[in-house]
Amino acid sequence: MKYRLLFPALLSAFVLIGQTTQSTIDQIYQEALSSSPVYPNLEYLCKKIGNRLSGSPAAAAAVAYTRQLMIDYGFDTVFLQPVMVPHWERGNKEIVRITQSNAGQMDLKALALGNSIGTGPNGIRAQVIEVSGMDEVEKQKDKLKGKIVFFNGPMEPANYHTFQAYGNAVIQRAYGASEAAKYGALAVIIRSMTQALDDEPHTGSLRYKPNMPQIPAVAISTRDADRLSQQLKHTKPVEIYIETHCRMLEPVQSYNVIGQLNGSEHPDSYLSVGGHLDSWDVGEGAHDDGAGCMQGIEALRLLRTLGLAPRHTIRAVMWINEENGGAGGTAYAQQALQNGEKHVAAIESDRGGFLPIGFTSTGTDEQKARLAAWREYFLPWGLHSFDLPGGGADIGPLAQQGTFLIGLLPDGQRYFRYHHTAADVFETVDRRELELGAASMAALLYLIDQESW
Amino acid sequence: MKYRLLFPALLSAFVLIGQTTQSTIDQIYQEALSSSPVYPNLEYLCKKIGNRLSGSPAAAAAVAYTRQLMIDYGFDTVFLQPVMVPHWERGNKEIVRITQSNAGQMDLKALALGNSIGTGPNGIRAQVIEVSGMDEVEKQKDKLKGKIVFFNGPMEPANYHTFQAYGNAVIQRAYGASEAAKYGALAVIIRSMTQALDDEPHTGSLRYKPNMPQIPAVAISTRDADRLSQQLKHTKPVEIYIETHCRMLEPVQSYNVIGQLNGSEHPDSYLSVGGHLDSWDVGEGAHDDGAGCMQGIEALRLLRTLGLAPRHTIRAVMWINEENGGAGGTAYAQQALQNGEKHVAAIESDRGGFLPIGFTSTGTDEQKARLAAWREYFLPWGLHSFDLPGGGADIGPLAQQGTFLIGLLPDGQRYFRYHHTAADVFETVDRRELELGAASMAALLYLIDQESW
Repeated sequence: MKYRLLFPALLSAFVLIGQTTQSTIDQIYQEALSSSPVYPNLEYLCKKIGNRLSGSPAAAAAVAYTRQLMIDYGFDTVFLQPVMVPHWERGNKEIVRITQSNAGQMDLKALALGNSIGTGPNGIRAQVIEVSGMDEVEKQKDKLKGKIVFFNGPMEPANYHTFQAYGNAVIQRAYGASEAAKYGALAVIIRSMTQALDDEPHTGSLRYKPNMPQIPAVAISTRDADRLSQQLKHTKPVEIYIETHCRMLEPVQSYNVIGQLNGSEHPDSYLSVGGHLDSWDVGEGAHDDGAGCMQGIEALRLLRTLGLAPRHTIRAVMWINEENGGAGGTAYAQQALQNGEKHVAAIESDRGGFLPIGFTSTGTDEQKARLAAWREYFLPWGLHSFDLPGGGADIGPLAQQGTFLIGLLPDGQRYFRYHHTAADVFETVDRRELELGAASMAALLYLIDQESW
Repeated sequence: MKYRLLFPALLSAFVLIGQTTQSTIDQIYQEALSSSPVYPNLEYLCKKIGNRLSGSPAAAAAVAYTRQLMIDYGFDTVFLQPVMVPHWERGNKEIVRITQSNAGQMDLKALALGNSIGTGPNGIRAQVIEVSGMDEVEKQKDKLKGKIVFFNGPMEPANYHTFQAYGNAVIQRAYGASEAAKYGALAVIIRSMTQALDDEPHTGSLRYKPNMPQIPAVAISTRDADRLSQQLKHTKPVEIYIETHCRMLEPVQSYNVIGQLNGSEHPDSYLSVGGHLDSWDVGEGAHDDGAGCMQGIEALRLLRTLGLAPRHTIRAVMWINEENGGAGGTAYAQQALQNGEKHVAAIESDRGGFLPIGFTSTGTDEQKARLAAWREYFLPWGLHSFDLPGGGADIGPLAQQGTFLIGLLPDGQRYFRYHHTAADVFETVDRRELELGAASMAALLYLIDQESW
């Protein structure tokens, strides 16, 4: 009889613990969906400050705004972590003009790529040659000298996994200029990184390879890429004039913005959460990555508002310079190492403020098993994907100290309509989706914080 | 040795079959994501025809458009099924004005409810009394005579399941007028059915109970509902003037639009798929339910384009009059019964053109078990929810003949921002999400069609 009594007693104790954790998770979501300031906060960042490329006055304003916001929320410590960031600027509007083709002249919708040198006021005029991707450069190497090379490899629309399609295509944007310059090309034009067929050019950074001539690079909209490709099918050579005024200036002093709730039991162990504060210099950086920053701050506000005092120290971090350098993420990890701060886990939101469907992660099997075991708490809130690898560009450098790296995983179908464009504005963010993402990060912080690491 | 040889041989045969089915499913999705006309088709319906309430000239234009579209796609049979539909019209713009309150006068953003009688040109002016929901009407019954009753029960924002929150609150819109009229109220004002706090009034149908006085009903935006409620907290009585010009006209001849691919093995067994062609008379009926109609047609086009000739006869159906009567769904089921058509299964898309996450269903345990077993084919395409009950308003009447009823289940977080408002326009539909929904229905049709029922 003893055994028969004992077993149900044990069972109900476990059920009780389970219920308590679930009800805490539920409270976090309910608070976010009914009383969260995360959406108006994002509106302020987008509409009052706007886009904020590293080194710009708007980036400095965003540093001041998020710092003040966390002070206003009464976080225990709020501070700025100095970071030197590159300062690239676009200058006057780009011109990318077909000056000669079977169909005559035509202006293409274009944006210079971030970090690109400019053509200067005299521009570059040359014949265009199309390549279908990086692999084809080598094959066509004898024809590239003195030409403008047009990289037209598409982000495959049939690929459901949009970030995978991006990963497959983006090498053209990142290294196409150096690859073409190797064989004497004068400039490159890149098909925009999107699965959509529209008129929106997508910027993004390139990286010049060392010891290689630096040549100007622009992206054109996918519809214009199709038009250009069509003209290149005719026998008449296509000539294009490119004029860009972008340039790299001297590095600028900037900051990671950090707010923390001090841990009661393990104040020297850290959980970090957030996104990157800088954005491209078009649109408003709403999804990329205003959403992630505001969600990071909101995650801490939710814990504080619900009285969930953490055992570990929890930080909201707005990393600076993700877009064209990664200086903020690098500096944060270096400082953590220098200060002997043990970073248990870090969560980044940098895939847009869309419907959260799970978390990606990079860590040990044990770390990943713990994450997977929490899936059941999130299922009632629509999160079901807990097994994909990933993390985030800004938290990546923490890997060197064994930090468990986690990425908020929103549905990715809409992201590349807006990514790095003038269309990435506040109005494209849904309030409930943004709130659910913030709640998901707060809930995961709560779960991580309950355990020993 | 024989057994040991036999078993792997059997196994690999099954694996081969499994791969073939999965690769067919994958082909359907890939075709939809790369070459589908469903998005431009919806654009045409929204921009060239626009909203299309039953009985309106635009509804007739939508009948003609979808019929022609299916003829152009070469479906085996395309025909119109006559349906008499109610013909309600809004008339001149509504006036809902606070004429007396602590804060003075204020116009509220309002839409008359569908099927409501109008106030006539002289309007109704009366004191306002607020109730928190249907239950409170009974409690306050002695105070309602000669008043305008303001139903302010919110669609709970904290509820993740938006359709559940809608179901809990919508009884006020459907029956509030009759309930208040029972105790002598002159008119009702309903808080709009949305979890958002904004300036958009949401219309939708009411149903007058038989043998009860019919009184006018309007919905106001949630922000105005909060303002009105605020004024009612003061001691000064709040008086409102309502003027609506809506009226119910004589029934009109309309049609369900049906296109079919004839079955090769079971031509007399039917699978139906589609949405409802009518919409409210504001916005463009993009999500509700232009999306479902265009997806239904696209599902058949995908099967035809990929050469997947069906064994059963498969129909795309545009049901008419879902919004304010349900005459199309009723007529369709009646005709099926009269003609002795065995309807094996029906799939409806009427939850917006958002990211598909699964299917709901109503049927026997065996039917539901078959659906659940197909889940693995859909997981690579993001659909994971196969267990929730549901179906669709238009296919519901087929239940009487034992048809397996299935609803496409998109994520529901954004739906009630747009539902029944001027904001339900084409631009709020994402191309990939719409395409994925169409592919999901085509894939499910393919799977159902492969089996015997």
